[in-house]
Amino acid sequence: MQCAYDGATTVQEVAVEIIEVGPRDGLQNEQVLVSTEDKIELISRSIDAGLRRIEATSFVHPQRVPQMADAEAVMAGVPRRADVSYIGLVLNRRGFDRALAAGVDEVNCVVVASETFSRRNQGMSVADSVQVVGDLAEESRAAGLGLSVTLATAFGCPFEGEVPETTVVELARQVHAFGVDEIALADTIGVGVPAQVSRLAGGVAAAAPGAVLRCHFHNTRNTGYANAVAALDAGVTVLDASTGGIGGCPFAPDATGNIATEDLVYLLDRSGVGTGVDLERLIGTARWLSGVLGETVPGQLARAGGFPAYSA
Amino acid sequence: MQCAYDGATTVQEVAVEIIEVGPRDGLQNEQVLVSTEDKIELISRSIDAGLRRIEATSFVHPQRVPQMADAEAVMAGVPRRADVSYIGLVLNRRGFDRALAAGVDEVNCVVVASETFSRRNQGMSVADSVQVVGDLAEESRAAGLGLSVTLATAFGCPFEGEVPETTVVELARQVHAFGVDEIALADTIGVGVPAQVSRLAGGVAAAAPGAVLRCHFHNTRNTGYANAVAALDAGVTVLDASTGGIGGCPFAPDATGNIATEDLVYLLDRSGVGTGVDLERLIGTARWLSGVLGETVPGQLARAGGFPAYSA
Repeated sequence: MQCAYDGATTVQEVAVEIIEVGPRDGLQNEQVLVSTEDKIELISRSIDAGLRRIEATSFVHPQRVPQMADAEAVMAGVPRRADVSYIGLVLNRRGFDRALAAGVDEVNCVVVASETFSRRNQGMSVADSVQVVGDLAEESRAAGLGLSVTLATAFGCPFEGEVPETTVVELARQVHAFGVDEIALADTIGVGVPAQVSRLAGGVAAAAPGAVLRCHFHNTRNTGYANAVAALDAGVTVLDASTGGIGGCPFAPDATGNIATEDLVYLLDRSGVGTGVDLERLIGTARWLSGVLGETVPGQLARAGGFPAYSA
Repeated sequence: MQCAYDGATTVQEVAVEIIEVGPRDGLQNEQVLVSTEDKIELISRSIDAGLRRIEATSFVHPQRVPQMADAEAVMAGVPRRADVSYIGLVLNRRGFDRALAAGVDEVNCVVVASETFSRRNQGMSVADSVQVVGDLAEESRAAGLGLSVTLATAFGCPFEGEVPETTVVELARQVHAFGVDEIALADTIGVGVPAQVSRLAGGVAAAAPGAVLRCHFHNTRNTGYANAVAALDAGVTVLDASTGGIGGCPFAPDATGNIATEDLVYLLDRSGVGTGVDLERLIGTARWLSGVLGETVPGQLARAGGFPAYSA
């Protein structure tokens, strides 16, 4: 367990692990093509703020996601530290081989919980994507890489609407049977609500005993932070967030940004939940990102600042 | 208890009462001077959507809050219905007399939990504002008007920083001793977090036994909806919200809008918590408001829409 100064008066145990997904999920849907140098700076700034797991890039076809075409160059330029783990998103064996060669510490695979979105997002059926996970689980063990699986559209699909919770739970059971130790429930289009988070997290915990539960929320309908709180209450210990709240998904209509790392850390800090992350540095990075992207980021802390200092 | 169709398949009991504060707290801080006709239309649309308590205006000095200078004209133009209650905000006897003459159903008084903000917001000490409540409690009983008290800056003050929870709880005890039956905890500048909401709501419930607990959240730091969920979990039964999430406070630096009525209703609808309010009508009103104000409202549903319909 790490310890972290909470900015006030006590030393807090790190109770929640935050994965910074801004360099991948965050930037992926931004219109501005961000330079490799700025991506590496975003990653370095995230590490300086105390984040220790970074979704650095994705190894997908560059024509499908042009923003990620420089995946190898990003990985070649990031600072290498024993206490930092870089995650690369992969959808198939070709991506896995690229990620391995580029020197990631972990790979993240995606299984979509609805057929239509699966075919649009990764060009294969749900069953085929589960099989990919099965194959890559063995490969990653052999290569000494961490492996996590994200269950996408777990709270609803832009094309099919409601996604049965039993479907999500069954997919969790299947990937866990391959030895996957971290399973992420992703609200890809930001439709989830806290009661749903509690039910799904409970269902997955029962179907995948011993798995580390992780959640990935978008704030598209202003439920993202309430969902994060519900997830922690339900036993989830890892949360994805992107500094500035940037991002979305080019294949999910109307999807807007992830929950913002700095807004999440503000909420957790003031709730006495340790994150090991420095809020002021995050706010600085969010403001820097606004400059890089040429627009105000959706996260609110970049504008409002943290808790007001006593000025009387 | 009212019943309401939840938009899906079941009839839900109304479990949460939402007070629409857009016509007052929402519009108060908007730069655009909104016409009396548009204010009346906002109120009528709110009623059409199923809202039954409306904070219609405030009876304060027109030079301090020019947007509310037409308080009497608004009240003269709103539809009168036996099942709708109009609330007027008052800060002193002069305001109370105006509200009574204008035909409000209820008055809302404000007691600020921090001295500096109290003097800036209403030009008097905290103790003097408590005495105003004592005087008006008798007057409102005599006049047959409902009376609620909002405890402002309950979660933090822009000028003094931390506000001791014991101070807020003691103020609740004092106003409850005057016979005030509804007490609202207001996060005036949007700094509160769920753990704080739980503690404060519990403290006030103990200090003011039998009082109806109400909360008023701003989403300035993206904690507003998580706070609303925490409030309901802690036994709060009434929530303030403004359609579009518009608003703020001209005397609180960096305060941004209230939680948006439509975003709150989306969260509650999908959680199976009845509100009696029609989401699609609210979204329509939020979009109409964007036109009136000449800017996109902060609420997310106006942009994203509700849960996606099955389109495959």
